[in-house]
Amino acid sequence: MITGKNYIGNNLIGVGDKFHRTINAKLNIENPSNFIEATSKELNQAISLADKAFKIYKNIAGKERASFLNSISDEIMALGNELIEMFTLESGLPEARAIGEISRTVSQLQAFAKMIETEDWKKNIIEMGIHDRKPFPKPDLRKTYIPIGPVVVFAASNFPLAFSTAGGDTASALASGCPVIVKSHSMHSGTGELVASAIIKSVKKIGMPNGVFSNINGRGMSVGQALVKHPKIKAVGFTGSLSGGKALYNIGSQREEPIPVFAEMGSVNPVVISSKSIVSRCEEIANNISESIMLGTGQFCTNPGLLIVIDNEKTISFIKSLADKMIKKGSQCMLHPNIKKNYLTNSEIISNQEGVTIRGKIKGKFDANFVSSQLNTVSGKDFLSNSILHKEVFGPFSLVVKCKDEAELIKVINSLEGQLTGTLFAEKEELKGLEEIIEVFKCKVGRIIFNGVPTGVEVSEAMTHGGPYPASSDSRFTSVGLDAIKRWVRPFTYQDWPTDFLPSGLRL
Amino acid sequence: MITGKNYIGNNLIGVGDKFHRTINAKLNIENPSNFIEATSKELNQAISLADKAFKIYKNIAGKERASFLNSISDEIMALGNELIEMFTLESGLPEARAIGEISRTVSQLQAFAKMIETEDWKKNIIEMGIHDRKPFPKPDLRKTYIPIGPVVVFAASNFPLAFSTAGGDTASALASGCPVIVKSHSMHSGTGELVASAIIKSVKKIGMPNGVFSNINGRGMSVGQALVKHPKIKAVGFTGSLSGGKALYNIGSQREEPIPVFAEMGSVNPVVISSKSIVSRCEEIANNISESIMLGTGQFCTNPGLLIVIDNEKTISFIKSLADKMIKKGSQCMLHPNIKKNYLTNSEIISNQEGVTIRGKIKGKFDANFVSSQLNTVSGKDFLSNSILHKEVFGPFSLVVKCKDEAELIKVINSLEGQLTGTLFAEKEELKGLEEIIEVFKCKVGRIIFNGVPTGVEVSEAMTHGGPYPASSDSRFTSVGLDAIKRWVRPFTYQDWPTDFLPSGLRL
Repeated sequence: MITGKNYIGNNLIGVGDKFHRTINAKLNIENPSNFIEATSKELNQAISLADKAFKIYKNIAGKERASFLNSISDEIMALGNELIEMFTLESGLPEARAIGEISRTVSQLQAFAKMIETEDWKKNIIEMGIHDRKPFPKPDLRKTYIPIGPVVVFAASNFPLAFSTAGGDTASALASGCPVIVKSHSMHSGTGELVASAIIKSVKKIGMPNGVFSNINGRGMSVGQALVKHPKIKAVGFTGSLSGGKALYNIGSQREEPIPVFAEMGSVNPVVISSKSIVSRCEEIANNISESIMLGTGQFCTNPGLLIVIDNEKTISFIKSLADKMIKKGSQCMLHPNIKKNYLTNSEIISNQEGVTIRGKIKGKFDANFVSSQLNTVSGKDFLSNSILHKEVFGPFSLVVKCKDEAELIKVINSLEGQLTGTLFAEKEELKGLEEIIEVFKCKVGRIIFNGVPTGVEVSEAMTHGGPYPASSDSRFTSVGLDAIKRWVRPFTYQDWPTDFLPSGLRL
Repeated sequence: MITGKNYIGNNLIGVGDKFHRTINAKLNIENPSNFIEATSKELNQAISLADKAFKIYKNIAGKERASFLNSISDEIMALGNELIEMFTLESGLPEARAIGEISRTVSQLQAFAKMIETEDWKKNIIEMGIHDRKPFPKPDLRKTYIPIGPVVVFAASNFPLAFSTAGGDTASALASGCPVIVKSHSMHSGTGELVASAIIKSVKKIGMPNGVFSNINGRGMSVGQALVKHPKIKAVGFTGSLSGGKALYNIGSQREEPIPVFAEMGSVNPVVISSKSIVSRCEEIANNISESIMLGTGQFCTNPGLLIVIDNEKTISFIKSLADKMIKKGSQCMLHPNIKKNYLTNSEIISNQEGVTIRGKIKGKFDANFVSSQLNTVSGKDFLSNSILHKEVFGPFSLVVKCKDEAELIKVINSLEGQLTGTLFAEKEELKGLEEIIEVFKCKVGRIIFNGVPTGVEVSEAMTHGGPYPASSDSRFTSVGLDAIKRWVRPFTYQDWPTDFLPSGLRL
């Protein structure tokens, strides 16, 4: 049962007079529930509860926090079909995606739970004192990591589950010992409320402090901005657009007490395809890349939006093959009307630039939130002289840059902003000769892929999902994988502290 | 031989028409050399060289970078008396401090050298692919850390060696694979040039790329700000005042591409002294704290500037004893006229506040940069109602806050901003009853000390030198100890990359 209210800690509250509705993406009609925007008073209550909960939650043993995360995972699974139906209704994504994303969400929670069952992840360091060291004695020093305080998480438009209410940011922050206030996404607030209800059930069941989790509705920017501005909020996690992420980063850095805002703001994820690999595997590569561009209607941070090739005859047939495959897929539904609108506007802006040709696009207009994918081409020269062509078009879109030679191809990579990923399709025996390309690529990205596609981000310790700005606001962290917890903790040292009063992980 | 020029990479250049001189701190007269401010052209040359050097330096093996750091350490030692004399001349600090700081500087370089001889510090992760995993194969993922790019380091006023030209920031950045441009400190530019000459000797001797290190002169803010604004600069290290650090942080965060600015901006380092410990160890504690306040004329980030006690008879004799010990030390020389001026102004501001009493101060005026230490007292009530009293007075100054009871003492700690350290003098058997105090303390500091003094920061893996804002601009890092290297690196993942082309640390 959707109430449309906010979870202010454990309580469902909604006395405000502003509300919004989510959209049935496939039919482009409003869904029935009214989601009531939190009032300032409710916001402040949620923050005050989070601050109080922090004082308790940060000292709760890792094993107990792990039980909490595992319980959330169980409660999400217990939502069953209701969650799958709400997810597909609000996002227009297929049931298989709902099931996949639920599975990813619970496995993330379980992975963090497993990690925090022991102290290993903190890599605690114990240095015994040396009392007779000259000229000064060495103190006994013991270092651990402690949580930084209440975290605000913005639900991501494109991952209603795995990067929203109980997604990677929430799971890693709760694992670290930080309370979380989620700003729900206005286009999947129903999915958000269901997941929030599962979290609150776990809070009560496991006996976690009231305020360790809140879920806040709000349509525009004001609710989210008020949360980030509040002095008791100590960090922010965001996945979304560059403009949205940058706005929050600016608020976070210009507060009286600046706070870290980790914003993952997407990228065009350049893919370099060597001519030799096109000769030997044209169809296979065109197939992989077309699938990757179209996956989830192209609504992934790691969507391959820029394909860089050397201009020759083989490349021309590769482009044709790729365009054909994309067209063959037919039209697809986007997440909500705003995303469709932006997709149409931005793909048209690119199409209208000097030297750009549309190679693959189904003609005509499409109902509701359905769109055609689109493949454009441009020369290396035109790409280099026009920074508009470097911008991300969020959706099933890719731009092929045809370079006259390797020198120009290197210039093209060098001209790019920071990216989440870089991909190289090539034959193994070529790699020695491609070292310069690889070197410039490495400077631009957080993850480099050989003969694969950038979509399909593995959740594991070895994953990096982040990269030089503007891929993310701080390339020194990742938002996917177990290391995502590092965003919410700070080092803390005990000097000459009596053993009996040290945390158990710092005793010998 | 001091030239007064800038090291633009390996070349000594100085064609500008602005210059400054350092001060003989003890006599308060100018030293003879003219230090020529770098021109914009020279700045840009240094940055361009650093950018080019980065492309080479980041791929140089850890072992070779270690040789470079060890060579810098040797060349600094080879400067011998010339360095000691210049240090004491420019800083007014005694020879023993020069020797101590040289020792700390070279041991920092050697510690980072030792660390980077192997790959262990990166904690590389290798996850083999699972090709038959359902529903999707798991890719082969290998994560390491790579340097982020050219770093600007600001030489610290109060550590002409250990936190300046080849100090902790420079050593950790060079260790990580980042080129460094040092903005020398205008009050110890001679010491800076000598150390820079040692680094450049090592660059040539070990065959490191030209531009891996530059040393830039400049008196005001403009040179440093121009460095931080430059798009090719990727991070900043700073130790100094809150106003200076905040200004650089703002520039770094408001650039088109924001960059991390790690600013360590000092703190008042609160010390709580329990009444029981005063009863049992009054003289010992007064002695330790007076030494700590006076050490280096109080010019340490970790100077104990705030002493928090319960107001009773025993406390009154403790304050008297402490004041007597401080006065007995006599006057001491500060680093330079500006620091003396600020010390006199700021200690007077505190003294003039409602309810503040001066308990220990030698009367009269002092020549050159000499000053008297000062001990003030105030009630908990007055402290809580006046935020001016919470500000740091940089120098041999401390404010005793006399609280009426434990509840007020907790309020006092709770009212403080973020701090580098927190210290508790107490009897072990009391600790159980002091848990609430310890809990609020932990929220405020990066390092907590039992029955010791906050000065004397150990350089080791277990050290945390950083803390909640404004102690530092990002509490998730430390600027002292081996983990300081983490500020300059970012995670990087290879996906399905052919083994032969992986960095050696990522092969099995």
